[in-house]
Amino acid sequence: MKLVTFVDDGREAVGRLDGDDTTVRDLTPVVGTVPLLAVIEDWHRVGPAIAAAGDLPVVDAPRLRAPIPAPRRDLFAVGKNYREHVAEFGRSGYDTPGRSEDLPDKPIVFSKATTAVTGPFDDVEAHPAVTAELDYEAELAVIIGPGGRGISREDAFDHVWGYTIVNDVTARDVQRDHKQWLLGKSLDTHAPMGPWAVTADEVPDVRALEVSSTVNGEPRQKAPVADLIFDVPELIRVISAGITLLPGDVIATGTPVGVGIGFDPPRFLRPGDVVECAVTGLGALRNTIR
Amino acid sequence: MKLVTFVDDGREAVGRLDGDDTTVRDLTPVVGTVPLLAVIEDWHRVGPAIAAAGDLPVVDAPRLRAPIPAPRRDLFAVGKNYREHVAEFGRSGYDTPGRSEDLPDKPIVFSKATTAVTGPFDDVEAHPAVTAELDYEAELAVIIGPGGRGISREDAFDHVWGYTIVNDVTARDVQRDHKQWLLGKSLDTHAPMGPWAVTADEVPDVRALEVSSTVNGEPRQKAPVADLIFDVPELIRVISAGITLLPGDVIATGTPVGVGIGFDPPRFLRPGDVVECAVTGLGALRNTIR
Repeated sequence: MKLVTFVDDGREAVGRLDGDDTTVRDLTPVVGTVPLLAVIEDWHRVGPAIAAAGDLPVVDAPRLRAPIPAPRRDLFAVGKNYREHVAEFGRSGYDTPGRSEDLPDKPIVFSKATTAVTGPFDDVEAHPAVTAELDYEAELAVIIGPGGRGISREDAFDHVWGYTIVNDVTARDVQRDHKQWLLGKSLDTHAPMGPWAVTADEVPDVRALEVSSTVNGEPRQKAPVADLIFDVPELIRVISAGITLLPGDVIATGTPVGVGIGFDPPRFLRPGDVVECAVTGLGALRNTIR
Repeated sequence: MKLVTFVDDGREAVGRLDGDDTTVRDLTPVVGTVPLLAVIEDWHRVGPAIAAAGDLPVVDAPRLRAPIPAPRRDLFAVGKNYREHVAEFGRSGYDTPGRSEDLPDKPIVFSKATTAVTGPFDDVEAHPAVTAELDYEAELAVIIGPGGRGISREDAFDHVWGYTIVNDVTARDVQRDHKQWLLGKSLDTHAPMGPWAVTADEVPDVRALEVSSTVNGEPRQKAPVADLIFDVPELIRVISAGITLLPGDVIATGTPVGVGIGFDPPRFLRPGDVVECAVTGLGALRNTIR
């Protein structure tokens, strides 16, 4: 199933995407007025009811928000998790020379603040007073279902509720100057998410999905999820080793080669630029820099 | 005022600490069953009612929880924010030699996951399967009142609701091995908080407060908040430049010299150790490693 969070006449609700991926049906008669986060938390009960529901009202002109517009805590995100991206990052001179082209031997995990989350087609703020080096990062994101700690690789997919797309927008100068990445990764509107939340049963092999992006229609990134250095089960294992994962937690898994800082000279985003981030079967984000 | 979150007979409620700092009065008759987070959000209305309330029931044997036991997002935290601590961190060999003894020229801001928060007198888990290098960091923490973005130094204190203490417990090996600090700073129970939340009006000069810690009664850390490299107004200015701060946000401001990794050889925490973290006028955390 493909679920969305939409706004219609000022009312926010959870919907189901049907048929041609353009018809949004209002799930309020089934789930009530709760957010998708609550639906995920209660999925063993609500999921079957949503799947079975017929004759739901079609929403005329839904404005899609992020599927989880108000996460219960910061998003988990992973850095340098595709080989060729590690190489471009190293060549860019961003890090200490001679160090950063090595592949990480453990996942580099940081967070994006909740207030960075924005809708799949909303504008992304340029924040000119804060950054002059705005960059994009198309990423597959995992949405956790049943929470837990000490989750093994073998059990990891039992804890995956579904998937979505996150553009891990990054202010490179802020990321670099503050050493730890939280601020450079968390400016308001710098985590476009969506357009849909797709349940895990629709993704038989997550490794086969392809992550891609364009800027103003020009292809920039394209790689299969199979290229991840630390794959989805490993990320869940490592993060949950000492941290209890919660239903609705989002893990952005890392971005492939082709980001703006990888070009020489770098190609940072400017107001008016349109960034599209897609993942096979999960739709595409399309955000304009303002 | 000093406010607490307590559990009594399985019921969680907000209380006011009175007189000798040992009497907890139940504020349920004034604020209802909401958490302290909601009280802070509605402070302009609820604050005066709490201050005026007399004759509140005394709670017999309250178990204190963290004042904000379930933050709405990860805690903001600041690294290397006291000069002598930067030096001990550099000497420890933790970072790249020759680099880390330099004072940071911008605040190093990271986050601690919500699930790390635990009560002021609760046990801290040793996580022996994840870390062999457990360390303590006593810190003054700021609790944000009115939210906002682009807050100036001059206006910063208008956005401070109050203060509390956080022990920024750190798994040094995890912090180092994963490059970004989120995982090493966020193991379950690794953010003891409290014991009280003290409103800003009781702290006329935050710079005069002293942050200190002991391990098994042995003094380890002691420094005035005036020694912060980036002071409270600067941290609020920098974080809010591009990130909207929310009511109830917590900013742990950094730790003074004297942490375990600063000793040669390092003195990491072991099960059975008792860590106390105090700040003048804010009480003290006392947590046993288990």
